[in-house]
Amino acid sequence: MFCKEIAMTDHPESSLSRPTIADVGERELLKILEPYLARAGEDLLVGAGDDAAVASREKLSNHHLVLTTDMLVEGTHFPHRNSLNWRALGNKAIAANLSDIAAMGGMPLYALISLGLPPDVAVKDILALYDGFRDLCQPYEVAIIGGDTVASSQVCLSITIVGRLSTYFEPALRSRCQPGQRVYVSGALGGSKAGLRLTLDPQLAGAVPVSVRDALMSRHWTPEPRLSLGVSLAGICSDLAMIDISDSLIHELKLLAEASQCGFQIRVPAIPIMPELVAYCQETHESPHHYALTSGEEYELLFTTRLDYETLRKRLIEHHEPTTITPIGKVTDQVGVVEFLDEKNEPITVVDETFEHFRH
Amino acid sequence: MFCKEIAMTDHPESSLSRPTIADVGERELLKILEPYLARAGEDLLVGAGDDAAVASREKLSNHHLVLTTDMLVEGTHFPHRNSLNWRALGNKAIAANLSDIAAMGGMPLYALISLGLPPDVAVKDILALYDGFRDLCQPYEVAIIGGDTVASSQVCLSITIVGRLSTYFEPALRSRCQPGQRVYVSGALGGSKAGLRLTLDPQLAGAVPVSVRDALMSRHWTPEPRLSLGVSLAGICSDLAMIDISDSLIHELKLLAEASQCGFQIRVPAIPIMPELVAYCQETHESPHHYALTSGEEYELLFTTRLDYETLRKRLIEHHEPTTITPIGKVTDQVGVVEFLDEKNEPITVVDETFEHFRH
Repeated sequence: MFCKEIAMTDHPESSLSRPTIADVGERELLKILEPYLARAGEDLLVGAGDDAAVASREKLSNHHLVLTTDMLVEGTHFPHRNSLNWRALGNKAIAANLSDIAAMGGMPLYALISLGLPPDVAVKDILALYDGFRDLCQPYEVAIIGGDTVASSQVCLSITIVGRLSTYFEPALRSRCQPGQRVYVSGALGGSKAGLRLTLDPQLAGAVPVSVRDALMSRHWTPEPRLSLGVSLAGICSDLAMIDISDSLIHELKLLAEASQCGFQIRVPAIPIMPELVAYCQETHESPHHYALTSGEEYELLFTTRLDYETLRKRLIEHHEPTTITPIGKVTDQVGVVEFLDEKNEPITVVDETFEHFRH
Repeated sequence: MFCKEIAMTDHPESSLSRPTIADVGERELLKILEPYLARAGEDLLVGAGDDAAVASREKLSNHHLVLTTDMLVEGTHFPHRNSLNWRALGNKAIAANLSDIAAMGGMPLYALISLGLPPDVAVKDILALYDGFRDLCQPYEVAIIGGDTVASSQVCLSITIVGRLSTYFEPALRSRCQPGQRVYVSGALGGSKAGLRLTLDPQLAGAVPVSVRDALMSRHWTPEPRLSLGVSLAGICSDLAMIDISDSLIHELKLLAEASQCGFQIRVPAIPIMPELVAYCQETHESPHHYALTSGEEYELLFTTRLDYETLRKRLIEHHEPTTITPIGKVTDQVGVVEFLDEKNEPITVVDETFEHFRH
C-alpha cells in the first residue's frame, strides 16, 4: 500500500505528487478508497459498490428522514488545488452539511460523496481528503455509503447527507419566528472570516501571535457542527425556529425575516466574539463586531424561542449540553426590518457583504 | 416570466442567450427554479428552501431505503455547453440514476440535484435542463426536494436519488449470480452508442435515413429506466442478481463475474439488437453485435436467475410487465471468464472499450 504510506506522513504540503490519479486510474483509485466506505452490516444491508446502497428503516423508528446536499467547487469555495489543505477541505465539506442537519434538529446517518477530479491530482491528496471526511463522519457515526468519482477540469465535491429527525418534535423551520421570541446564537462568532484572511495573507499571518493565528485558522478550516445542541434545542423549545450561520449572521437574519415575515432587533454588543478575534482586530485595527456580523462558514446555530435565557440554560444543562448560547436580541413584527443597536440602544448600519454566486 | 417564455419556444439551439445566470444572480435563479421543486405536502414535511428537507417515514412502510448518486461533468460526460441539448441532458442524468435504483429492484421517491454552472450559461438553458429533469421525475413521481446551485468554470451536475425497496424481497445484488442460472437482458441493445456517434458526426447523421437517425439519437438522449421491470423481477425471482447497463454489456458482465466469483457463457447471436441499429450498420459496414456488446448508457437491465424463459415470461405477463426480456446465455463456475460464442458455438474475442476516468 504505497499510496497509503505517503498519505500517512506528516507532510501534507509535501512536494511528492506521484502517483497521480491518472497513474492509477479510476478502478484502482476506488479500491484504494474502499477502507473509507461503509460495509454492509446490521442496519446497512448493502454498502457502497453495488448499483445503489440499501439501508434498513430500523434506524428511522419514530423518526422522519432529513436530507441535505451541498456542492463545493475549486476556485469558488476553496483555493486552487496546488495550494490546498485537502484534509481540512474534507473536514469542512462534511461540517457544512452536518450543520444543515443540525439546523433542523436532526442527526446524520449516511453520506453520499461524489468527486470531480482533474487527472493531475495526487492520490495522497485524495486520501487526505477522505481522512478529512472521516475526521467528522466517524465521531458522528455517519456511514459513507456511496458516491461517484469522475474526471473534470477543476476539483468539485458534492455531498449529500441523509439523517433522521424525531417525530416527537416539529422541524425547526426558518418560518417559525414569531414577534416576542428571543434571538439566540451558539458559540462565539467572527473567527472564520479572520481565519480565511490569515490563510490568504501570509504577511498578516506572520504579524499576529501564533496562538491567535492557529485558533482563527482552525476555526475556519475545522468547524464543529452543532448537532447535539440542535437536537437538544428541538426537544426543549416547542416554538423553535433555527438556521445555521453559513453565509453570515446578518444574512441568516434576513433569511429568517423573509421566511417568517418578521423583523429583528439585535444588540450588537451582546453578540459573542471569539477572544482570539479581539487580539487579531487589535493588530488589524478593525471592528470584531463587524467580523461577527459578516463572517460566513461559522456553522453556529441562530435560533429563536419564547424561552428566556435562564430557563433555556437550565434545560440545556439537564440535557448535558456543553455548547454555550447567548441571547442577542428579539423578534419584532416589522416585516423585513433587521435593526442593529449599539451599546446606547442607537441604531447602527451594517452592510451585508454576503457572496452571491454568478454575480460579477 | 420572460425567461419562462424563452424556454417554452421550440428552438433549443436558439442563439438567444440573454439573460445569463450572471445577469439574474443566484437568488433570482433560485426563484425562477422554484416551480420545479417539491412543496411540502402529505409525506414531505419540509420541501426545498430550508436548511434540509424532511420526509415522513410513512412511504417506507415495509420498505428499506435505497440510495444512489451520480456526477456528470461537461467535457467528460456530455459535450461543451455551447453545443448542448440541455433538456436531453436533464432527462439523461435522471435516467442514469433511476436506472441504478431499478437495478436494485427499488422505486425512487426523492431527488437532490446540485449544479455547478459557469456565469455565461443562459437562464433558458437552465430551465430546459429542469424541464428535462421533470420529464422523467414527473411520470415516476420523484419529488425534487433539495439541491445547491454554485459557480464553477464547467457545467457539473450531481444527482442523488433516495428510493424504497420492499422488505419482502432481497436486494438484487451483483454478487448473487450462481453457476447454472440463466442470463437475461431487457430491451434491445446497441442503439445508444450509435446515437452518440450520430450526434458527434453530422455527416454520418445525414447519410442514414431520418427515422433511423431519430430512433438511435433518442435512444442515446432519452433512455427509459426499467423501474417497473426491476420491481417485477425482484418480486418474481427469489435468486435474482441484477445490474444496469451503463458502461457496456461486456463491462457489466465482468463486474457481475467479479462480484459473484463466477463466469459467463454468452451466445452473441442471441443478444437482442435494435432494428434501427441494423439499418445503421448497413450504412457504416460495422457489426451490430459489436455495438450491442460495447454500447454504454443503454440503461437496460442485465440479470441472472434459475427461472427459465417461459416461466419468467408468464410471470411477467401476470405482473402486466410490457418490457421484453431475452435469454442470452448462462452463468458458469469459471471464475472471471466471460466467454462469447458465435452461431456455431465457437468462442469469439470481444475487446472491452469501456471508458475509464482519469486514464489518458
